[in-house]
Amino acid sequence: MFKERIYNFSAGPSTLPLPVLEQAAAEMTNYRGSGMSVMEMSHRSKTYISIFDETKADFKRLLKVPDTHEILFMQGGAWLQFAAVPMNLIGTTGKADYAVTGNFSNLAMKESKKYGDIRIAASSEDKNHTYIPAQSALKLSQDASYFYYCANNTIYGTEWKYVPETKGIPLVCDMSSNIMSMPVDVSKYGLIFAGVQKNMAPAGMAVVIIDKKLAGSELPVTPKLMTYQVMIDADSMPNTPPCYTIYMMGLVLKWVEAQGGVDAMERLKRERAKILYDYLDESRLFKGCAEHDARSGMNVTFRTGDDALDAAFAKAAAGAGFENLKGHRAVGGMRASIYNAMPIEGVVKLVEFMKDFEIKNKQGRD
Amino acid sequence: MFKERIYNFSAGPSTLPLPVLEQAAAEMTNYRGSGMSVMEMSHRSKTYISIFDETKADFKRLLKVPDTHEILFMQGGAWLQFAAVPMNLIGTTGKADYAVTGNFSNLAMKESKKYGDIRIAASSEDKNHTYIPAQSALKLSQDASYFYYCANNTIYGTEWKYVPETKGIPLVCDMSSNIMSMPVDVSKYGLIFAGVQKNMAPAGMAVVIIDKKLAGSELPVTPKLMTYQVMIDADSMPNTPPCYTIYMMGLVLKWVEAQGGVDAMERLKRERAKILYDYLDESRLFKGCAEHDARSGMNVTFRTGDDALDAAFAKAAAGAGFENLKGHRAVGGMRASIYNAMPIEGVVKLVEFMKDFEIKNKQGRD
Repeated sequence: MFKERIYNFSAGPSTLPLPVLEQAAAEMTNYRGSGMSVMEMSHRSKTYISIFDETKADFKRLLKVPDTHEILFMQGGAWLQFAAVPMNLIGTTGKADYAVTGNFSNLAMKESKKYGDIRIAASSEDKNHTYIPAQSALKLSQDASYFYYCANNTIYGTEWKYVPETKGIPLVCDMSSNIMSMPVDVSKYGLIFAGVQKNMAPAGMAVVIIDKKLAGSELPVTPKLMTYQVMIDADSMPNTPPCYTIYMMGLVLKWVEAQGGVDAMERLKRERAKILYDYLDESRLFKGCAEHDARSGMNVTFRTGDDALDAAFAKAAAGAGFENLKGHRAVGGMRASIYNAMPIEGVVKLVEFMKDFEIKNKQGRD
Repeated sequence: MFKERIYNFSAGPSTLPLPVLEQAAAEMTNYRGSGMSVMEMSHRSKTYISIFDETKADFKRLLKVPDTHEILFMQGGAWLQFAAVPMNLIGTTGKADYAVTGNFSNLAMKESKKYGDIRIAASSEDKNHTYIPAQSALKLSQDASYFYYCANNTIYGTEWKYVPETKGIPLVCDMSSNIMSMPVDVSKYGLIFAGVQKNMAPAGMAVVIIDKKLAGSELPVTPKLMTYQVMIDADSMPNTPPCYTIYMMGLVLKWVEAQGGVDAMERLKRERAKILYDYLDESRLFKGCAEHDARSGMNVTFRTGDDALDAAFAKAAAGAGFENLKGHRAVGGMRASIYNAMPIEGVVKLVEFMKDFEIKNKQGRD
């Protein structure tokens, strides 16, 4: 039982800014004199539409989304986009290139095979996804409808540090775990999507940023609610959207803006990551899992090399108020997810705890 | 600006029980000593899994769902089910029967045409969907994979008062707007689905109740996240579910149980509806839109016969704290949605307001 809030290093759903949660609580039964909760509002009501429009406008301003691109709020998280992307975009040539650098790009690649001819343009599987392939290693097809990659690999703790150059082939990117953590040149992308449950909101939605000229060539079997053109035409509301999730995202975006926008988010991201990786580099107990130049600024993976000790660490950390440090079941070890809402203080205290654990552990072994 | 909560007659998203909203607010920043919000919890954490399991168990107990059927929580609302149903179930024969008794069954029927040979088993379009076809009027195909209908027509204010007899053809029903408002013999159904945003939770999810033997015959193009067998095998969690929506539904279900379960909900439903329909039958200004024996216990549609007066009424009502009484744009007039969470008091006061409006209006005309 914790009377105070703990530091939550969950990979997603993830920690949210405390002021955002406090505001949501305060507005729960009567949103700003409307006499009702945001949860209860008709999605066609003026009050709700203004929440929706403001959230979308804030997102557009923060990520500098150009007018060539539309912002969509869609249900089903990133997983439904794994199907929506090929259903909507592969029609042009029936072929697409995928870079497989972790679990989610692998899942996306497998799902897309239902809809076309899929080629593996690059894979980091040979080294258990501990690195990101270089631009020169990408095998690009000239007849691909798009090139797909996942910008940050939550499970393996790696992050792409460059935007692939695809010579005119539309670039599709899953930014679920690093969106809103830094500036992005959206104009370079045909489509970006992101499940919101890591850096932006509670689970239950994906944001899609699509170059409008790519919409409208969906396969005939595409469900209406997964059709980008339908979503564009109806401004994400052919049916009832996940209204409260959008409202929560709006509150988070206001918080991001108050912190200084995505430039500030990137500074904080580097700062948090440096504290953890610097310690991992000097520690004699804990070792980082990802190769240095591929290290993620959002998910820091590490291990002791001893599975029992890893488990003991995660358990002790949880007891001390550092929750969800156990690594994904596919890889074991530990993972500290340090998204936008994780305060620097949380990382500093975690490192103190790790140092303490390292000392105690040495003493135990000596 | 309302300092107090108003009476919200929205058709969906809809009013929620005040104690539920108060509890959600109280638990927002630290759920029962976990040190975090439900919004921030890993969906694989013990605390969250217990919320999930309890919600599912409560739903199963309240609706007496038999062990032959599985309960699924899926994203995309009812609209994604319009595609999921044929994608998963039509494979057996490639054919299905649809009863079209309103907007949503019509949308479902159109969507299903992407996936098979669809027949119209019945339609109430000839009288602008003001009635429900009788059992004897249903044209059933012997080779249909399923028979589809929508139990309550939110826009037109009609409700099926009988369960169609289909002679062994699996029965599929959209119960979005009347689920949890009365007992249901689930064993009669192959599949029931319901968007949760009317009687059960905020928007962003559908509950699916499926006879497990119907799963596993999905079309090859079915997205993984829309595949019932995948959802059954992963207990609705192949990916991150809409965690907070499930939590909110859990709170609502506890409230339903505390009121006396679905039997009590049905009593209250009849009581609320009777108050409104009795007045409509005696009023010389307002007239009910639906035929008597098809009248919905959830959505009461009415009009004055004068569009300008209808608009004046809806506006005056909103100013007096009776919100969202304007009818759907497809039909005009007025609509009072009186779901589970609408207190009897709200309906009594609405009728008082309507009587007052009727008197004032007569005086104005005399």
